[in-house]
Amino acid sequence: MSTGPQPLRKLVVVGVGLIGGSFALALKEAGRAGRVVGVGRGRANLDAAKRLGVIDVLRTLDGPWTAELADADLVLVAAPVAQYPALFAAMAPHLGARTVVTDAGSTKQDVIAAARAQLGMALPRFVPGHPIAGTEHSGATAAFPTLFRDRNVVLTPLSETDRDAVATVASLWQVCGANVRELDAAAHDRIFAAVSHLPHLLAFALVDALATRPDAEDLFRFAASGFRDFTRIAASSPEMWRDISMANRTALLAEVDAFRAQLDRVAAMIAAGDGTALEAVFANARLARRAWEAERNAAANPAPADGPRES
Amino acid sequence: MSTGPQPLRKLVVVGVGLIGGSFALALKEAGRAGRVVGVGRGRANLDAAKRLGVIDVLRTLDGPWTAELADADLVLVAAPVAQYPALFAAMAPHLGARTVVTDAGSTKQDVIAAARAQLGMALPRFVPGHPIAGTEHSGATAAFPTLFRDRNVVLTPLSETDRDAVATVASLWQVCGANVRELDAAAHDRIFAAVSHLPHLLAFALVDALATRPDAEDLFRFAASGFRDFTRIAASSPEMWRDISMANRTALLAEVDAFRAQLDRVAAMIAAGDGTALEAVFANARLARRAWEAERNAAANPAPADGPRES
Repeated sequence: MSTGPQPLRKLVVVGVGLIGGSFALALKEAGRAGRVVGVGRGRANLDAAKRLGVIDVLRTLDGPWTAELADADLVLVAAPVAQYPALFAAMAPHLGARTVVTDAGSTKQDVIAAARAQLGMALPRFVPGHPIAGTEHSGATAAFPTLFRDRNVVLTPLSETDRDAVATVASLWQVCGANVRELDAAAHDRIFAAVSHLPHLLAFALVDALATRPDAEDLFRFAASGFRDFTRIAASSPEMWRDISMANRTALLAEVDAFRAQLDRVAAMIAAGDGTALEAVFANARLARRAWEAERNAAANPAPADGPRES
Repeated sequence: MSTGPQPLRKLVVVGVGLIGGSFALALKEAGRAGRVVGVGRGRANLDAAKRLGVIDVLRTLDGPWTAELADADLVLVAAPVAQYPALFAAMAPHLGARTVVTDAGSTKQDVIAAARAQLGMALPRFVPGHPIAGTEHSGATAAFPTLFRDRNVVLTPLSETDRDAVATVASLWQVCGANVRELDAAAHDRIFAAVSHLPHLLAFALVDALATRPDAEDLFRFAASGFRDFTRIAASSPEMWRDISMANRTALLAEVDAFRAQLDRVAAMIAAGDGTALEAVFANARLARRAWEAERNAAANPAPADGPRES
C-alpha cells in the first residue's frame, strides 16, 4: 500500500485562483504541503488567499517573486495561459535543480511550446497538466479543498519529461482526490475543443447576442431553468476563455466548422418539415446524453458489493 | 383578500405527463380538484398515474374518452402539440356549455390555429397557456405538486376569449404557485424560440454530432460539469421537441440564422487573433448572465422587509 508522496516543504502557486487555491488547500488539508507561497498580479486576491489560509506567504508579480523558486519542491502555474511565456521566461534562471514545475492550463500544445522556448534546462522537470474541474466562479475566495475529488486530471508529458517528476505530480493530484490520466497533447487539445471550448464559445455567443437585442428584457424575463443550465458557463472568466480560445484556435475553429455543418443539417430538416429525421437526431442525442450521465454517476457512486439486500 | 377559484368538481387532463400530472397534483393538494380524469395514449403511464394518486379515473384515447367532457369544469390539454388538431376535433362536439379548455403547449400560434379550425362554438372558452416549467424527465411518474411554484405561466388569450375563462385558468395556475402573465401569441413564440427552442436545438445537435464520431468514447470520457449543464436539455423528450421545432419553425429558423451570424462573427475574431473583441463578447455575456441570475434569485427569495438586523 502506497503511503503517497513526500510532503512538499515548499509549494509555490503562481495564480492563486479557484484552481491554484484549491490545489493548495487540498494538499494542506492532507498534510502534504508545508509552506505555500502564493504569487499573483492582484494584491487584494493574494491578501484574501492569505486571510483564508490558502497560502502562507504572498508575492506579487511586480516584486522579486522568483527568489522563492530555488528551494521550492513544486511550482504550480495556474494563471491564464497567455501569461505562460513571460512567466516561464522569468522562472527559468531561478528554478532549483530539483524543483518540479507543473501547470493547470486548459490547453496543452501552446503551453508545451512556451515551455520548450523558455524553460531551457528545466524542461525535463516540467509536467504539463490540466485538472478537469472548475466552476463559473473565480479567484482565491472561490477555492475549496474538495474541488478535485473524483475529477480527471490529464497530464501530457513530453518524451523527455522526467518520469519521477510525472510520478510526483500524479501522486499529488491523487492526494487531492483526482483520477490522473495521460494523453498526448494534440489529442488533449482536440478532445477539449469539442467537449469544453466549443460549448463555452456557444454559450458566450448566445448570451451576448440575446443581451444585445432591443427585446433583451422580454427575452430574459421568460428564460427558465433550461436556459439557466445551458448558459451557466457563459458566466465564466472572459480573460481565461479568451486565452483558451486563442491558444487552441486551430482545434476550436475546426469544431466550430463541424458544429456549423451539423446546425445546417438540422435546420434543413426543420425547413423541409422532416420531423422523422429531426426526431432521430434528438433521440440519438438523448440516448447518448443519458448513457453518459448514467456512467458518470456510476463512477462517482460505485454500486455496493454483492450481499444480502432488503426486498 | 381573494379566496381563490371555485374548486373544480371535475378536471380532465389530456396527456398525464410531467406537466399535466403536476397540475393535477398541485390542485389536489390545494383542495381545488375533485375528480380528476386522466386521458392518454399509454395504458402503463395512466396506470402509474392512478397508482400514484395523480388521477382518479383513467381513459385511453382509443376508447370513448370524450364522454368525460360534458360535465367537466376544466380540460387541460398537455399532450405533444402535433396531436392538438385531432384532439380538438374529437373534443369539440362533446364539450359542456360551461367547460373551460386550456393547454400547456410550448408553442402558441399553431395551437391557436388548431383551436380556431376545430373548436367551433367552444373557442371563446379556450385559454391558450404555457407553463414555463419542466425537467428533462417525462411521464406521470416524474410529476410533483411543486413543479410550478415561482414559475411563469404565460397565457395568450385571443380577442374573442371569454375573460371569465381567462380569470379561472389564471387563478388555478396561481393556486399551483405560478406567476401568470399575458402575452400576444406571436410575441410568445418569438421569445421562446430564442430562449428555449434554440438552446434545445443546439444542445441536441451538439450531443448527436459528438456521439456519432469515431472518437466519441474519448470525448465523453473527458467531458465534465460544464458539458453536463450545457447538454442537460439534450436528454429531453425527442417527440415533444420535434413537435415544438416543427410547430414554431418560422421563428426557430430565424433564431438559427441569427445565431449562425453571431457564431460566424465570433469565429472570425478567433481566426483573426482579435482577443480584445472576443473578450468583449465574453465579458458582455458574463455580465448579462450574472445580472439575470441575480434577478432570478432575488425574485425567488425576496429580501426580508426592513427591520433590525444583527451586525
